[in-house]
Amino acid sequence: MKLPVDPVENLVTLIRCPSVTPAEGGALAALEAMVKPLGMSVDRPVFDEPGEASVENLYARFGSEGPHLMFAGHTDVVPAGDEAAWSHPPFGGVIDNGILYGRGAVDMKGGIACFVAAVARYVEKHGAPKGSISLLITGDEEGPAVNGTVKLLQWAAERGETWDASIVGEPTCPQALGDMIKIGRRGSLSGRVTVSGRQGHVAYPHLADNPVRGLLSLAEALLNPALDSGTEQFPATNLEITSIDVGNPATNVIPAKASFAFNIRFNDLWNAERLKAEIELRLRAAAEDKRFRSGREEPVQFELKWVGNVSPVFLTHDEKLINTLSASIEAVTGRTPELSTTGGTSDARFIKDYCPVVEFGLVGQTMHMVDERVAVADLEELTRIYLRFLEDWFG
Amino acid sequence: MKLPVDPVENLVTLIRCPSVTPAEGGALAALEAMVKPLGMSVDRPVFDEPGEASVENLYARFGSEGPHLMFAGHTDVVPAGDEAAWSHPPFGGVIDNGILYGRGAVDMKGGIACFVAAVARYVEKHGAPKGSISLLITGDEEGPAVNGTVKLLQWAAERGETWDASIVGEPTCPQALGDMIKIGRRGSLSGRVTVSGRQGHVAYPHLADNPVRGLLSLAEALLNPALDSGTEQFPATNLEITSIDVGNPATNVIPAKASFAFNIRFNDLWNAERLKAEIELRLRAAAEDKRFRSGREEPVQFELKWVGNVSPVFLTHDEKLINTLSASIEAVTGRTPELSTTGGTSDARFIKDYCPVVEFGLVGQTMHMVDERVAVADLEELTRIYLRFLEDWFG
Repeated sequence: MKLPVDPVENLVTLIRCPSVTPAEGGALAALEAMVKPLGMSVDRPVFDEPGEASVENLYARFGSEGPHLMFAGHTDVVPAGDEAAWSHPPFGGVIDNGILYGRGAVDMKGGIACFVAAVARYVEKHGAPKGSISLLITGDEEGPAVNGTVKLLQWAAERGETWDASIVGEPTCPQALGDMIKIGRRGSLSGRVTVSGRQGHVAYPHLADNPVRGLLSLAEALLNPALDSGTEQFPATNLEITSIDVGNPATNVIPAKASFAFNIRFNDLWNAERLKAEIELRLRAAAEDKRFRSGREEPVQFELKWVGNVSPVFLTHDEKLINTLSASIEAVTGRTPELSTTGGTSDARFIKDYCPVVEFGLVGQTMHMVDERVAVADLEELTRIYLRFLEDWFG
Repeated sequence: MKLPVDPVENLVTLIRCPSVTPAEGGALAALEAMVKPLGMSVDRPVFDEPGEASVENLYARFGSEGPHLMFAGHTDVVPAGDEAAWSHPPFGGVIDNGILYGRGAVDMKGGIACFVAAVARYVEKHGAPKGSISLLITGDEEGPAVNGTVKLLQWAAERGETWDASIVGEPTCPQALGDMIKIGRRGSLSGRVTVSGRQGHVAYPHLADNPVRGLLSLAEALLNPALDSGTEQFPATNLEITSIDVGNPATNVIPAKASFAFNIRFNDLWNAERLKAEIELRLRAAAEDKRFRSGREEPVQFELKWVGNVSPVFLTHDEKLINTLSASIEAVTGRTPELSTTGGTSDARFIKDYCPVVEFGLVGQTMHMVDERVAVADLEELTRIYLRFLEDWFG
């Protein structure tokens, strides 16, 4: 039986499956067919949730002993957008001048294709590893992420699965293959502040109370001073005001309400509770500050609502995992990867509750864009990095 | 022939005409029937404009010589709103316990009813005045004000009409009859500032440029310091931010644009050109201010658009008009009226281009509200003030 040792062939097969979230699109079936010849056991659990699309997932394992390495990722992709704008069909898997085009090329069918090829080469070269390798692949990472990795981890854990380390194959490299490993993530916290005033005519401002003045001072209090200046492993906590909404179309009317939304990406100096307390403190202090009240006696009237779920901050401390991966990258590419905690959330935030996790994959520059693409040479190089990592981690 | 000497009777007649803008509702016809017995000449010009409703107006004149006093006002009213919420039908003209209820009772069929009664009593008492009295009444003051006073003044001027002074009968008194005359108005100027940034993911703020930071500093620069602290005749120029609009629903996205709208009510220290220059200067200075740039090299990118028409500031200096009116008020009510320039725009802003103009009428507390109403005693007193004014101004 032919082993899936060629990452380019693997990736072309996966790209040709139009697996736009939540469609399976044949991608998990193709992956199952790819890893079966390696002797992996494969499960394809489907998860449901009222109000959400059913989603197919895949869990494959090779070996039954420890240590146990998990490779995690997703076969679902974001929509192609304007297909006419693509140089090559987004689900065609066309190679042109050493570049493979297609939706998911880097985010992240490419990472899966390389990891599978690395496992195949390992088996070809060394036989079964002294331990286990599993693939934890979801079809719901780009979507609501409800019927994906969270449930798949829970499902596997309930069957007794435990892991010693995990690599998520997301495209982590900003410029060149090997320039960045992600070893943690900032937390994320969102809220909305609504300031209440008293509606009135602009010609009679003393009879009204414009909530915009209060809003400006509360917003300013969240932006300044900076929440911190960063830590050894994390950049500075950053707060962005993502929207301000009054929606008053009448130029002669002072509005009754004004609100703004904000999002904070926070580092390991904080946890959600302490950060919430700090935000509430700043808002209350600004609301009470007489300098901002334009002569009024009462504090600014406001309401703070926390929006959505909190993503906690985390940092992986597994030296064997991080050092082995770094050394593999250096050996293959000559680059020393930056150990970073920047960027948006990923499924690593769920995996960290089960085992140490890092993220490492292709160069992400074209992810989610028209003409998403990857250099064929990068696919070969990433496969060699993953292979070197397997050899050293199990060796 | 019966002369319209009773303001209460006049007002009941007018309230029973449902003249919600732009409907004539029988109100101008009733007014014509009221003043014809006084020997007034009456014209009822109708004005049109593409895209606007046709509007009926009335111009009546008594006498042909100077000096010429014009009384100006409107018979159109704002809608009744929830009629079920009224204590008495809004177009019923019911008197209950000394209070006359109805839409337009104070704004401003009441002022017209009293002025007509005052003219009738003058004629009854003294015969024709040594000069002329005219009524310039529109049906389009509460609406777009396009087919109303502006065109009626032009129409009359083209027929050779000139005036020496004008009283607008709007409800000017905040608390008690006689407590305020308006002798001018602040100007009004509106604009919108749009700040451009660069959209991006909140997790990568260094790749984006949040326009909200720039917006906060530009808005702050317009609010502080105050534009002035007022003049002898005018309150301080006041700027209100009437809306801020980003409209970004995604908590993980830094928006590309943010805008705010503002309105300025300005006093006689400014004219529109100098005020626009000051606003532009403040915005440019704040945009260039490095303190507000959060480490960026480029100034805040913004666009300023002036919105709608500018209302110029004006102040009436006619001592005879103001002193005679003040003295009449004091003689009848015992109150010394405040000479004010506060409040919203009125048709006086058009009349001021033809002759000195002041505004004086009933207590405005219930205008535009459910249960708009006036004390019958106030109608009698206002009639006596207007009569005393006519006697002294012509005397």
